[in-house]
Amino acid sequence: MGGDFSLNYQPEEIYDVIIIGAGPAGSTAALYTARAGLKTLVLYRAEADGALGVTQKIENYPGVPGPISGYELLKIMREQAKSFGAQFVRGKVIATDLTGEIKKVYTIDGREFRGKTVIIASGAMERANKFKGEEEFLGRGVSYCGVCDAAFFKDQPVAVIGEDDYGVEEAEFIARFASKVYFVVPGSRIKAPPEVVEEFKNLPNVEILLRHRVIEIVGDQVVKGLKVKDLNAKEEKILEVNGVFIFLGGTKPSVDFLMGQVEMTDDHCVVVNEEMMTSIPGVFAAGDVLCTNIKQAVIAAADGCKAALAVDKFINKKAKITSQW
Amino acid sequence: MGGDFSLNYQPEEIYDVIIIGAGPAGSTAALYTARAGLKTLVLYRAEADGALGVTQKIENYPGVPGPISGYELLKIMREQAKSFGAQFVRGKVIATDLTGEIKKVYTIDGREFRGKTVIIASGAMERANKFKGEEEFLGRGVSYCGVCDAAFFKDQPVAVIGEDDYGVEEAEFIARFASKVYFVVPGSRIKAPPEVVEEFKNLPNVEILLRHRVIEIVGDQVVKGLKVKDLNAKEEKILEVNGVFIFLGGTKPSVDFLMGQVEMTDDHCVVVNEEMMTSIPGVFAAGDVLCTNIKQAVIAAADGCKAALAVDKFINKKAKITSQW
Repeated sequence: MGGDFSLNYQPEEIYDVIIIGAGPAGSTAALYTARAGLKTLVLYRAEADGALGVTQKIENYPGVPGPISGYELLKIMREQAKSFGAQFVRGKVIATDLTGEIKKVYTIDGREFRGKTVIIASGAMERANKFKGEEEFLGRGVSYCGVCDAAFFKDQPVAVIGEDDYGVEEAEFIARFASKVYFVVPGSRIKAPPEVVEEFKNLPNVEILLRHRVIEIVGDQVVKGLKVKDLNAKEEKILEVNGVFIFLGGTKPSVDFLMGQVEMTDDHCVVVNEEMMTSIPGVFAAGDVLCTNIKQAVIAAADGCKAALAVDKFINKKAKITSQW
Repeated sequence: MGGDFSLNYQPEEIYDVIIIGAGPAGSTAALYTARAGLKTLVLYRAEADGALGVTQKIENYPGVPGPISGYELLKIMREQAKSFGAQFVRGKVIATDLTGEIKKVYTIDGREFRGKTVIIASGAMERANKFKGEEEFLGRGVSYCGVCDAAFFKDQPVAVIGEDDYGVEEAEFIARFASKVYFVVPGSRIKAPPEVVEEFKNLPNVEILLRHRVIEIVGDQVVKGLKVKDLNAKEEKILEVNGVFIFLGGTKPSVDFLMGQVEMTDDHCVVVNEEMMTSIPGVFAAGDVLCTNIKQAVIAAADGCKAALAVDKFINKKAKITSQW
């Protein structure tokens, strides 16, 4: 759940590799680095997050007869990585310091993680466009982090704009504080496992509004409401709320936390060499952050494998990548 | 078994794509092309053939918790491809005519298959070096094809040099004709599923010689014997045989059947562009024939996926590869 961050990590520890993202690229990288004996940490934002995590049905992943959900496939990959000793810790990465010998990765709840190498596998689900009023009221009612800000809205009504597992988990955490949570979903369904949605629906102070398009965040000094259009009734209305939490996905690479430290294209696609290394030695990238034109799980997994082998080579200063794993 | 070639193909048919090889690259390519509605034929040499097929244990293929045998993993991939309509036909490819609009692929038993496109996914298990006497007696007792030549050795003793499933299947076929089959294995075990080996062992006219190194094929006009060194007893001996069949694997790309039609490096590695297309339009390649330095199943599978998407684009003259499969 929202605030239930795993604490099974050692704050003092320096990992061999910190992998940002637990999709097919990150999970496969973790499987390979952990199996190679490298101390591996995977930071992830939510259980069923990411392009594969929200995929309802997949039947073309070679080796796994479908249809199964993308989330189920991910769970298998993650369990494999864990079985070799990879640690998975939940935490949204918001900042990084990659320039030194030891790389630092910061999560939204204020933790710092340190690693000799980093694999950026955070996918491509960032939003390209912001809502009207979103920037104006940021920090004055608009938030991107339930764990950080939910307590400010104790006994007050809020809106949570979400569409998937990630949004639901955040909303559940926020609902512990807020008097009322309007869960505003632009589409016609919540992209999350049915049991997650079912549990969420049963919360007494949550109201789910499907097919509601966000028009504007309104207020004066602070947020006073969220203007939405009900696509069913074809009418606009204002939800009277003091806070608006936004947890939506798009298709842009999720690389804000890099703060321009590694070379990227104009479209924010991370640039790597043949061994998946970015412009910073020891920092690698894999999967959809590279803007590969084929967004298939097996391609991302193969990228993750390549990045992991390159990390191993980098750390062990091996002369040559071999296939002897 | 050796001569039990599947006949469920239409000789007159023109396939959208002929895939040569049923390893992770070929099987994944077939899964994608068949699922995209393309008429897909996969030609393969033996059931548990190839680098993955002979792998005893694999536990780092993402999405498939191990350890399982490489052969089991392959079976899953092939079944997936079949479930979408891909046809798998057994037949060792020995020649191709790739220059025309319609590509022709020939198997060792004399069949011709025609396709609009070809994906070369035949792996890298060719032998770099030949045995002493091998070239001298080729066609005069030395053979690479049981189906073609076994009948010439009816009621005569032969040697079969093999190490895996492929060799065993050929030897079983040959044993139907020969009076005696010496199955000469350079290593200490036969790389094939245990049940296959067990069945093979029980054939009355087969004698398995493990840890026997081949020294020389001897004869005058025709083969008279095979000189081997028994590594256990540390002694050389001559097996008196009239035929020597060779079914060994190495690490060179298996591309003899291309007869130099597509661009290759000096090491016989097939050269492809970003979309896995060779120097001939409509002819693609994937997996170990590319001499990728990372010989992992997931990398080959990803290659197969890319090649399949490129085939689809080529056939449908799509403007752009999309991920909308």
